[in-house]
Amino acid sequence: MNKLTTLKEAILASGLTDGMTVSFHHHLRNGDYVLNMVMDEIAALGIRNLTVNASSLFNVHSPLKEHIRNGVVTKLLTDYMSAELGRFISEGGMDTPVEFRTHGGRPRDIELGITPIDVAFIAAPAADCMGNCTGNRGKSACGSLGYAIPDAMNARFVVVITDEMFDYPLSEPSITEQYVDSVVKVDSIGNPAGIVSGTTKITRDPVGLAMAMQAVDVINASGLLKDGFSFQTGAGGASLAAAKYLMDLMLEKKIRGSFGLGGITGFLVDMLEAGCFESLLDVQCFDLKAVESIRHNPKHQEISASRYASPWAKSSAVDSLDVVILGATEIDCDFNVNVHTDSNGYIIGGSGGHSDTAAGAKLSMIIAPLTRARLPIITDKVQCISTPGSSIDVLVTQKGIAVNPANTELTYRLRSAGLNVVDIRQLKEFAEALTGIPAKPVHGNKEIAKVIYRDGTLLHTINNVN
Amino acid sequence: MNKLTTLKEAILASGLTDGMTVSFHHHLRNGDYVLNMVMDEIAALGIRNLTVNASSLFNVHSPLKEHIRNGVVTKLLTDYMSAELGRFISEGGMDTPVEFRTHGGRPRDIELGITPIDVAFIAAPAADCMGNCTGNRGKSACGSLGYAIPDAMNARFVVVITDEMFDYPLSEPSITEQYVDSVVKVDSIGNPAGIVSGTTKITRDPVGLAMAMQAVDVINASGLLKDGFSFQTGAGGASLAAAKYLMDLMLEKKIRGSFGLGGITGFLVDMLEAGCFESLLDVQCFDLKAVESIRHNPKHQEISASRYASPWAKSSAVDSLDVVILGATEIDCDFNVNVHTDSNGYIIGGSGGHSDTAAGAKLSMIIAPLTRARLPIITDKVQCISTPGSSIDVLVTQKGIAVNPANTELTYRLRSAGLNVVDIRQLKEFAEALTGIPAKPVHGNKEIAKVIYRDGTLLHTINNVN
Repeated sequence: MNKLTTLKEAILASGLTDGMTVSFHHHLRNGDYVLNMVMDEIAALGIRNLTVNASSLFNVHSPLKEHIRNGVVTKLLTDYMSAELGRFISEGGMDTPVEFRTHGGRPRDIELGITPIDVAFIAAPAADCMGNCTGNRGKSACGSLGYAIPDAMNARFVVVITDEMFDYPLSEPSITEQYVDSVVKVDSIGNPAGIVSGTTKITRDPVGLAMAMQAVDVINASGLLKDGFSFQTGAGGASLAAAKYLMDLMLEKKIRGSFGLGGITGFLVDMLEAGCFESLLDVQCFDLKAVESIRHNPKHQEISASRYASPWAKSSAVDSLDVVILGATEIDCDFNVNVHTDSNGYIIGGSGGHSDTAAGAKLSMIIAPLTRARLPIITDKVQCISTPGSSIDVLVTQKGIAVNPANTELTYRLRSAGLNVVDIRQLKEFAEALTGIPAKPVHGNKEIAKVIYRDGTLLHTINNVN
Repeated sequence: MNKLTTLKEAILASGLTDGMTVSFHHHLRNGDYVLNMVMDEIAALGIRNLTVNASSLFNVHSPLKEHIRNGVVTKLLTDYMSAELGRFISEGGMDTPVEFRTHGGRPRDIELGITPIDVAFIAAPAADCMGNCTGNRGKSACGSLGYAIPDAMNARFVVVITDEMFDYPLSEPSITEQYVDSVVKVDSIGNPAGIVSGTTKITRDPVGLAMAMQAVDVINASGLLKDGFSFQTGAGGASLAAAKYLMDLMLEKKIRGSFGLGGITGFLVDMLEAGCFESLLDVQCFDLKAVESIRHNPKHQEISASRYASPWAKSSAVDSLDVVILGATEIDCDFNVNVHTDSNGYIIGGSGGHSDTAAGAKLSMIIAPLTRARLPIITDKVQCISTPGSSIDVLVTQKGIAVNPANTELTYRLRSAGLNVVDIRQLKEFAEALTGIPAKPVHGNKEIAKVIYRDGTLLHTINNVN
C-alpha cells in the first residue's frame, strides 16, 4: 500500500468541487512551481469558484490573475501579497475583497474552523510514499515547513507534492503520514534560485548602517539584553546589519541569549553558532545557510505557524520574545504601522508575522528611514493599519528615535543612556521639511481587501486605487 | 510570563468539576507517581464522579480502588489493566463497566470527540516553563511520550507535571507549548526502577527458545524477509529471543530492513545499530537502552499513538508493518485471541497495540506455549475476544505451527519450507491430552468491562467472576 498518485487523480480523489477552499504554503517563495501547477490542473478539470488560502503570494503566482478572470478563483485569503498581484487586486481585479490575515491569525482561523480548508497542497522537498515529508532535504530543499503544518493537520484532504522521494519511513518528518491522503511525485516543485537566496546581504547604505547601530543602542539600553535574551529580525538590509552589530555586542558582553525566532537567515545561524543563542525556532528559512543549519543542527528547530504566533495557542513563541525588529512602509504619529500598501495605495505586502511579533515582544522596534523615494515615512494617519500602534514601542530612524509615549520606562531608559530620543511629530516635520507634504493617494469606492487582525477582528479595509 | 503553578492551582484553573474526564499516559509504567498524586489532590478538592481515561493502568495505580469506592472515580477507560486493579474490577468493584480500547482506538476516539478529555495530566521527565516537554531527558527519563501526544493535542486543558525543569525553549520537545495550559514542578514523577527495567531479558526456557526459533523460521519462509522488511515484537522473553535470532539471520543474509516499530526494547536498538533497520518508530520505550537510544540517535524516532496505530489516521505505521509477533493468554480454533483475562476469567491485561498491529501487519504471529500452569492455551472459544481471528495469520507453539486457513499462501510457503504446519485443532487436542479439558470459569451476570475494537465497535463484554 502506498499513497502515490498523479496530481489529477489526487484532485479527483479529494472530491474537490465548485465553491471549495484549497490551500498552499509559501516556503518555496518566489521559486514555487506548485501553486500554479495545481491551479492549472484544477482549472483544466473545470472546477470553479474556489477560495485560495495561501500563507503568502509572490510574483511567481501572477498566473492566478488568469484564474481569477476566468472564475476559477473567486476569493483569496493570504498573509502577504507581492506587488504584481497586489496591483491587479488594487486596480479592482477581483469582486470579493481579499482577506489578509497574519501568520499567527491564519492558523488560528484554520484551527477554529473560521476558514476551513477542503484540500491542502503541500509542496515538500522530501517525502516518502505514505506522505511523511520535510523541507530540509532534497534538490528543492527550503528548510522549515512551519506554515504548512496547520494546513496539513486541519484540511479535510491533504496532497503532498514532491520532487524527491525517500524510503519509508522518512526520518525526522515535518508533517507525518497520519494527516496525508495522497502523494504526488513531479519533476520539480520549484526553482532553487527563487526558493532561497544564496546569501542574504547586509545593507551597505550608510543610512541603513546608522539606523542599525542606533537599533542596537536601543536594545542595549532597554534592559532586555541579558542572559536569556530572545530576538527576531526580518531579512531587510538594515535589520540584518542590526543583527550583525547585536552579535558583536553580545559576544563582547558575553551574553548568552535564549533563542532567535522567526524567518531565519544566515545571520541568526551565525549568532547560534557563536553561542549568542541556545536555539533557533524556525518557521521559515530565508537563505541557504539557514537550510543547511536546520538540516544538521539539532539546536535549530522547526516550529509550526501555530507554535510561532497563533493567538489561539495556549502560548506561542512570540509570547516569550524580548525584541523584534520590524519594517514599515508608513508609520503614523500614533505608531500605527502600514506594511500592506505603498505610497500610491497599491498593495505591495502584508502583515506576515509583523503584528504577531509586535504584539508578543517586550520591545517592538520599527526601523525605517525618514523618507523613501522622496516621500516621508511618517504620516498623520497611515493609509492602512497593518499593526496597531499600541503594540509598537519605538521607531528608529537615521535622525532620531521616537518612543511610543505609552512606554514611559523605555523613554526613561533611552534618555538615561543618552540616546537621541525625539517626538515622532518632530521626525515627521523634519521629513516633511525635506520632501514637502505629499498628496494622499486617491482611493475609489470598491473594497478590495480586508485586513484581519490576529484575533479575528477587522483592522482595516483597503479600497481600490483610482 | 510563564505557566508554572502548583498542582492544586492547576486543577482549580482547569475548571475541573464533577462528572468530567481526566486523562493520563503510561510511559512511567509501574514507576508512575503522577496518576495517584493527581487523583489524591482531586479527591481532596471534593471533586467526584470523574471518568479516568488512562492509556494503561499498572499495579502502582491500585489506589484508584479507593477513589472508586469513594465515588471520586465512577468510570474507567483504558487500553490495559494489570492484575491488581483487574481483580478488583472483575470482582464487581465498579458499577459502570470499564471501557477497554486499543492503543490506536484510544486516540481515534479522543480525536473524534467520542471520548473527550477535559483535563490531561502529562507526566513529563523534562519540561520548560511554557510546557514544552519531552521524555528523553531528566532523572525520570522514560523515552518516548507517544501515548500522551493525542491527549495533549485534544484535551480542553493540559497540565504538564515534571520533576526536572529546563530553560525555555526546551530542545526537541515531544509536546509543544501551544497545547499546554499549566506546568507543575514536583519532587519526583516516578520511581526510576519501575519506569523502565534496566534490561529486558531473553528467555532461558528451552520451550521459549524453541518457539522463538520456529517463529524466525516462519518469518524466513513467509517471503517478507527482504530489504525494506519491517518488524514489531513485544517485550516477552520468547518474543525477545525471536528478535535475537531474527537479527542473526538478517545479518547473515545481509538484509537491510526498513523499520522496527512499537514499544522499543534494547534488542530492537541492537538491530538498528547493527544495520538491520534504517529506523525505529517508537511510541514507548521498554528499557534503559531504548531510552538512551532515542535520546541520542536521530534514526530512533518518537511517534505519537495516532501515527503508531490510529485507524482514524489517514495512515499509521502499523499499516506499513510486515511482521508482528504477539502473545496470547488464550487463542481459539478460529484464531481469536484473548489478552484481557486469565484462565480464571480475571482481567489481567488488555489489547494495548495487539489488535492494531495484528490488523495492520502483513504477517501477524502469535507465539504461545501449548499450556501454561497446566492449562491449555488453545480453546474452542476464547472467553474474551481481544483480537479477532481474521487478523491473525499464524500461531507458533513448541509442538507445531498452525496457520489461519484464510491465509492459503502462507500455508503453502511454510509447508514448502518444510515447517511443521499442523491444524490448530490438532494442537488443541495435543494440549488437552496432556492437561485434560479444563472447566471454564464461571462468570456472573454483571457486565464489568466492554472491549471496544479499534474501529469503535463493541467486540466483547466481560462479566464479573463469581
